[in-house]
Amino acid sequence: MNKNQNHLFLQAAFRRPVPRTPVWMMRQAGRYLPQYQAIRRRYDFLTMVKTPEVAAEVTLQPVDVLGVDAAILFSDILVIPEALGMALKFVEGEGPRFSNPLRSARDVAGLRLEGLMDRLSYVLEAIALTRERLADRVPLIGFSGAPWTLAVYMIEGGASRHFKTVKQWRFAQTGQLKSLLHLLGDAVVAYCRAQIQAGAQAIQLFDSWAGLLDEAGFRQLVLPELRRIVKAIHHPGVPIIYFPRGGMVWLDALRDCGVDVMSVDWTLSLGRARAALRNKMAVQGNLDPTALYAPPPVIRQQVRQMLADFGQGTGHIANLGHGILPDVPVEHARAFIEAVKEESPHFHRSEERQAQP
Amino acid sequence: MNKNQNHLFLQAAFRRPVPRTPVWMMRQAGRYLPQYQAIRRRYDFLTMVKTPEVAAEVTLQPVDVLGVDAAILFSDILVIPEALGMALKFVEGEGPRFSNPLRSARDVAGLRLEGLMDRLSYVLEAIALTRERLADRVPLIGFSGAPWTLAVYMIEGGASRHFKTVKQWRFAQTGQLKSLLHLLGDAVVAYCRAQIQAGAQAIQLFDSWAGLLDEAGFRQLVLPELRRIVKAIHHPGVPIIYFPRGGMVWLDALRDCGVDVMSVDWTLSLGRARAALRNKMAVQGNLDPTALYAPPPVIRQQVRQMLADFGQGTGHIANLGHGILPDVPVEHARAFIEAVKEESPHFHRSEERQAQP
Repeated sequence: MNKNQNHLFLQAAFRRPVPRTPVWMMRQAGRYLPQYQAIRRRYDFLTMVKTPEVAAEVTLQPVDVLGVDAAILFSDILVIPEALGMALKFVEGEGPRFSNPLRSARDVAGLRLEGLMDRLSYVLEAIALTRERLADRVPLIGFSGAPWTLAVYMIEGGASRHFKTVKQWRFAQTGQLKSLLHLLGDAVVAYCRAQIQAGAQAIQLFDSWAGLLDEAGFRQLVLPELRRIVKAIHHPGVPIIYFPRGGMVWLDALRDCGVDVMSVDWTLSLGRARAALRNKMAVQGNLDPTALYAPPPVIRQQVRQMLADFGQGTGHIANLGHGILPDVPVEHARAFIEAVKEESPHFHRSEERQAQP
Repeated sequence: MNKNQNHLFLQAAFRRPVPRTPVWMMRQAGRYLPQYQAIRRRYDFLTMVKTPEVAAEVTLQPVDVLGVDAAILFSDILVIPEALGMALKFVEGEGPRFSNPLRSARDVAGLRLEGLMDRLSYVLEAIALTRERLADRVPLIGFSGAPWTLAVYMIEGGASRHFKTVKQWRFAQTGQLKSLLHLLGDAVVAYCRAQIQAGAQAIQLFDSWAGLLDEAGFRQLVLPELRRIVKAIHHPGVPIIYFPRGGMVWLDALRDCGVDVMSVDWTLSLGRARAALRNKMAVQGNLDPTALYAPPPVIRQQVRQMLADFGQGTGHIANLGHGILPDVPVEHARAFIEAVKEESPHFHRSEERQAQP
């Protein structure tokens, strides 16, 4: 199933020589694409996620329209909490909302881990269908929310200004929070394993709310669960990517977490990220998504800077530092992808010689 | 005017031996205090800021009620943009708003630097009055927004989700943004000098939006202006504090920026902050403000952890990692202050011996 290992994306993830830097964008199957909007007009967001036919179609759009080097399954990190028994709604203009946020240890005990993958089978069908349609043009990335980020949504129930409730769990109900994180860790492991089984050729763990934590909290609550998950879902040839948004100060603590690729946000230059990780893994990122509001010549100049910051050699997967914003012009997204393709061969000269002696 | 140099706060800021760690809280003159709310019911926010009698009274409240080791003038960072000619309003529940946000180089050219301090004289009167009423019990901290953070508010005009407009200036109108930052730098210098002249015994520069920037942006746009300001406002015996919220990844780049104290947020442990700064300056912070929602015994345990993270020796001013939140119980704020006072002598044993041979 995962036989073709020659994709640029996979080669770079494992830091093997590549002729140029591969590139994709977080949220690349999304609202900035007119093709996406055309489908979105016919279905609500959750229906799209849960209909394999639609999810596969939307997943392929950026591959066809922009020529990205990897596809990422169109889905949402909150399908796990929903499959655990929480009522999920997407409120227009407000984002996701749980009508019954977790309030107690009893609520945590009420989450249904049993039969989880039966309730998430639509994701696996979407993966199989997407793989079929992709016909190995580019690899397919599966993904999951990381436990802490899922817990934040499940406890807050929706958008929050100060994240008061989850912080109360963090400081005053640590045991309860740890139980929840462990249960979510189990769910993430089952979910990622099944995705790989179904054909996902890489897994990205999104920890979008990592940056809310204090350092001690990150070390005590996030790191151990991450290590456990990475170990459990390890599969030869399938790289694991971790994205701890807002957590760039902790990169050195993440050096030995076991992932193959660290996805970094735009607050840290790629050169310093590489140094903080002591070259122990590949690095993904990290153009500020708002840079795509600028005209294409500026985008190209920013891409050049990003490539130069990483420097010579393999081990870089170009991306944004967070998801592409919904009101970015498609032409600007295309300018980003093209600039990486055209400007990056220069940074892989020595590898080419190495690969073609 | 600034004669008494024996205050714990000033001693620690200059890393001289102290018997215990001094403590204050950002936004300590604020809504969590019933005494503040009683006054707030009678005046709107800007009237409080602009009435020296009221500003002085509110500034003193946390000194009287909680026993903090420093007072910080009750004011707002946006008084500078207002005095430069922008119409400022505080919308209940929404925060500050400029009805005429900057949109062009022409708007920047229209800002009135001349006569700035005449229009800000109420701040200087409030400082003089507060000093008089404080009668040297604790030192008075003056403050200003740093240029980048002021620019964010002036360009966005109010709350923003993706800070699209200011990011467009950052990536596509860099020259225009630099002119604005330079003009704001001049304003900040004039403002801080006048505050020191009026009796401010320390100056804190708030860069609350530092973390929005990419690393190159921080180095090109923030650092040079900061260095220039610090040099220009330097005054013997008056420590300068810089607070780059969300910018903890750049601490090493801030090592030589010239300030006396670096105020750090809660994402980085104080020990690592100290190491990143190579002990070149004092460190202020950094309990997560949401930790004050937890019961007092947890607050004390978190304070102990914070003190232990910094370790033995002087050079620590205890504080939160950002402003105290409006719905924290006063008793929890008091628990924080008391815990620092009671738990910290232990970390200054060697200094006591040194100071009293």
